[in-house]
Amino acid sequence: MLAPDLFSFAVRVRERAPLVHCLTNLVVTNFTANVLLAIGAAPAMVVAREEVGEFVPLANAVSVNLGTLDLPQSKAIRAAVEAANRTHKPWILDPVAVGPLSFRTAFAFDLLDAHPAVIRGNASEIISLSGGESSARGVDSTAFAEAALDAAQLLALKTGAVVAVTGPTDYVTDGRRTVALSNGSPLMTRVTGVGCALSATVAAFVGVTDADDFWAATAAAIAYSSIAGELASRDAALPGSFAVAYLDRLASLDANVFSATLVSRDVEPT
Amino acid sequence: MLAPDLFSFAVRVRERAPLVHCLTNLVVTNFTANVLLAIGAAPAMVVAREEVGEFVPLANAVSVNLGTLDLPQSKAIRAAVEAANRTHKPWILDPVAVGPLSFRTAFAFDLLDAHPAVIRGNASEIISLSGGESSARGVDSTAFAEAALDAAQLLALKTGAVVAVTGPTDYVTDGRRTVALSNGSPLMTRVTGVGCALSATVAAFVGVTDADDFWAATAAAIAYSSIAGELASRDAALPGSFAVAYLDRLASLDANVFSATLVSRDVEPT
Amino acid sequence: MLAPDLFSFAVRVRERAPLVHCLTNLVVTNFTANVLLAIGAAPAMVVAREEVGEFVPLANAVSVNLGTLDLPQSKAIRAAVEAANRTHKPWILDPVAVGPLSFRTAFAFDLLDAHPAVIRGNASEIISLSGGESSARGVDSTAFAEAALDAAQLLALKTGAVVAVTGPTDYVTDGRRTVALSNGSPLMTRVTGVGCALSATVAAFVGVTDADDFWAATAAAIAYSSIAGELASRDAALPGSFAVAYLDRLASLDANVFSATLVSRDVEPT
Repeated sequence: MLAPDLFSFAVRVRERAPLVHCLTNLVVTNFTANVLLAIGAAPAMVVAREEVGEFVPLANAVSVNLGTLDLPQSKAIRAAVEAANRTHKPWILDPVAVGPLSFRTAFAFDLLDAHPAVIRGNASEIISLSGGESSARGVDSTAFAEAALDAAQLLALKTGAVVAVTGPTDYVTDGRRTVALSNGSPLMTRVTGVGCALSATVAAFVGVTDADDFWAATAAAIAYSSIAGELASRDAALPGSFAVAYLDRLASLDANVFSATLVSRDVEPT
Repeated sequence: MLAPDLFSFAVRVRERAPLVHCLTNLVVTNFTANVLLAIGAAPAMVVAREEVGEFVPLANAVSVNLGTLDLPQSKAIRAAVEAANRTHKPWILDPVAVGPLSFRTAFAFDLLDAHPAVIRGNASEIISLSGGESSARGVDSTAFAEAALDAAQLLALKTGAVVAVTGPTDYVTDGRRTVALSNGSPLMTRVTGVGCALSATVAAFVGVTDADDFWAATAAAIAYSSIAGELASRDAALPGSFAVAYLDRLASLDANVFSATLVSRDVEPT
Repeated sequence: MLAPDLFSFAVRVRERAPLVHCLTNLVVTNFTANVLLAIGAAPAMVVAREEVGEFVPLANAVSVNLGTLDLPQSKAIRAAVEAANRTHKPWILDPVAVGPLSFRTAFAFDLLDAHPAVIRGNASEIISLSGGESSARGVDSTAFAEAALDAAQLLALKTGAVVAVTGPTDYVTDGRRTVALSNGSPLMTRVTGVGCALSATVAAFVGVTDADDFWAATAAAIAYSSIAGELASRDAALPGSFAVAYLDRLASLDANVFSATLVSRDVEPT
């Protein structure tokens, strides 16, 4: 994919300010909202089962993150996903720590039947969701993203979703086409919520895109975020100031710098 | 209102460190607490229905925000508001996204009967609460604050509360007297929770004030915060670093800078 | 205790990246996770009663904070503490605002029977837990840490836990040995969650330590954090930028600076 094509999705987000309804975990609500505001989207975090069915139709996309799932939230997520499908809004699944934990793992498998537009996770999570055995250690991936590429392609073909495996190299696949993206910085793993907020960013990007282009929009969201992170790591070498610089870079990244920094390659089908 | 009079409320907050009990949304808890600490107040976020009745009497004021309302929180809020009225503590209502969402809208109308000291919202929210039709798009105001001035005056007269409509220009009215405040920065809308934390700041200011002066205390809280935001936007042009600068300015704003920066005018009754 | 011995615990945290399962309050989740990441630990915040029993055995330590306790969380905490004891994982109790609030106070007393490895609180909280009368004003300590030293020693002997009372001077005791630590900065009280995150830091330190050394590991965690705060206060004089600098200092503190800055003394048994 060409850099200007990828960047065009970011421009569209800035122009249309998509409303992204996040049902996310208690650790990252604030950072996720600030990331969405930084890229020019509008966050909303309505949580009550009584309200999500009414709110989803007002949104452009829905972002579902299982990081601190409990029973009340699982009911709200079901209602949100049903409303999204009924009103043709794309919804994104971030299967945090799926694999070692039975409750969320069973729930995540159920959600696969509800047609997520995009699934974004680390290698362990994607391997688990595709039906394989993973060696997850909490929320950190111990398998390498590369090892999850097969699982991602399988999961994409099985569910019809675009699948993104993020790590030192990120892979985005719809089961037929796969792109590898190699920007970013290790500092992105030293700030909580960077990955969770990335899923919300994917929601913003697909929220202004036709379904035909969800694969490219997902790649664009990940490239945009990773490049902002890479640039921020040049501004700040320690995690406190890096988090601030990351938001600043997300808010100010321009087409020329984006193109000059992007490292991507097409991956041959396996 | 004269700048020194307005600033005197901020001095009182610093001297007395009012304890503000916030029942607020999951996105802004941390930022709200840091804003309160920055202005010299003491935040507390006791949430359980079992505890709020015991805690409110220890606080100086209560701040209620409906951003992520659910059924358990609605019960805790009712208990907190009853305790506030029983012990003569002022409580502030921030009716986030009231209008398009039935559950919170019905709840907010119920709360109007429980005598909030101050209601602070954007134009759409205030129009909805006053009984008008608004065109809210999620949590962002699409109506202009100016259009909500009539609604605010009506709502103030109907409820006996001071009503503040915030936006590019902020209006604070008790139904008879109205002041327009024109400080601030568009960057304040690029950081999540600035508005929600402003409601908590209003609670801190009225928490050290007699009921006769709630109108002036509310105007003071809004002027103080908007001026801090305006000054912070001179320190930092992007949202990540702006949020940091905003807290720093809230913690260090002095009387001279406040007076030199304040832009306010009295509004004639309509 | 010698500075190099204390610093060795921090080195071990960086090398082993202990997984710390936090059941904490809604205000500080994000900051706590970022503090843990900054010191080189791995945070996890699984909240559901359905999941904690499965997750605790994967973690190195558990941090329990009662700041926004409600009934569902109390059930999750019970399940987590049982799993911790069953699988021999140390767990830390942070009894936020125990004393004036009946629900959490009764719960905290119950938890004392479940063998916390460490209890960390301010003077009021520790006095209350030891069975004395405190004069807490919300979550801020109004009694001085010094006055709580007797209570801490009593509580340690009664429960078998290491007890840390933090304030301008911090005391860490196992009932027989007591160390006083005098680093830090008043700015640490102007950022919400510094104390709560300190409890999670203690969990990380004891999570890589044998039970024999929990007293020294607790002192090390507090000395490490206070010195980072003291150094950060030289970088930044206002609370917004101080919070950023604090995370940066936590991530970069080295052995030489630690040793040169540490102020500690052994306290004679009373």
